[in-house]
Amino acid sequence: MDLKSFIRDIDDFPQQGVTFKDIIPLLLDANAMRKTSKMLFDMIGETKIDKVIGMESRGFFFAPLLADKLNAGFVPVRKPGKLPFEKISHAYGLEYGTDILEMHTDSILRGEKVLIHDDVLATGGTAAAVCKLVEQLGGEIVQCNFLIELEFLKGREKLSDYNVRSLLKY
Amino acid sequence: MDLKSFIRDIDDFPQQGVTFKDIIPLLLDANAMRKTSKMLFDMIGETKIDKVIGMESRGFFFAPLLADKLNAGFVPVRKPGKLPFEKISHAYGLEYGTDILEMHTDSILRGEKVLIHDDVLATGGTAAAVCKLVEQLGGEIVQCNFLIELEFLKGREKLSDYNVRSLLKY
Repeated sequence: MDLKSFIRDIDDFPQQGVTFKDIIPLLLDANAMRKTSKMLFDMIGETKIDKVIGMESRGFFFAPLLADKLNAGFVPVRKPGKLPFEKISHAYGLEYGTDILEMHTDSILRGEKVLIHDDVLATGGTAAAVCKLVEQLGGEIVQCNFLIELEFLKGREKLSDYNVRSLLKY
Repeated sequence: MDLKSFIRDIDDFPQQGVTFKDIIPLLLDANAMRKTSKMLFDMIGETKIDKVIGMESRGFFFAPLLADKLNAGFVPVRKPGKLPFEKISHAYGLEYGTDILEMHTDSILRGEKVLIHDDVLATGGTAAAVCKLVEQLGGEIVQCNFLIELEFLKGREKLSDYNVRSLLKY
């Protein structure tokens, strides 16, 4: 099964000049989705993971599935104003624009092993911001795990201190 | 394991006078999360499900897990401007304010059996809007499945045409 055949290119979304990788056709197909979560899991290796982080919103599609497979907890990282409890935040640059991410302060305990998952590694700004949040809480980042990597945006360079794995490269 | 002990009440969120049910402590605990997805799954019954719908964003936490257990596809329903492909939309009233939901037109095929999942059944406006979208595409709603039901908001009344199940009632 060629997972890339389930990824749809959308030109000029969310803005002019950007080609967006639409992963929804992959989610719609039960077999493709199951194969994807298995392959994302297989990239992780043997280290015991305590928490899997997913980034709002598309990181939420696979992060809870990975947490389930790893018998780990799941931590949502969210856009400003969405989290109701005590939190920390970090501003970051996107492929298009800037944003702020927030995480509950009780999401990660000092010394916990953390897997960060998102759908797409683009410029790496989002993932780098999440790494900062995790480290601020004393977590240890085992891997940054992505479904898609847009290699021409060189996001890996921003994550050079971390173990970065991606399933589908463009 | 008492799943309600993992649900945190947050007063005056997202606005004055509303008590928000924070499910994140439940997500952080691997065993609580696993038990929750199993119990949500056990509510579904024997009917073959083709697609599981999750509503942005907290519906995304468990809907892909349910899709995986059911060997079904997963359909995200999103807020305006987030979906890149051809879509339909429906406006709805919330417990606090109003909003619009969107779904890709190719998400549901005519005659498919659909499970709708969200974290909370409050006034029922969100779920009723999603039911409309599913039916517009010719899908058949097998169940509206919720982690939490706020019974005092009488959301079930808006969903009286459907099979509604919820795991934790308040």
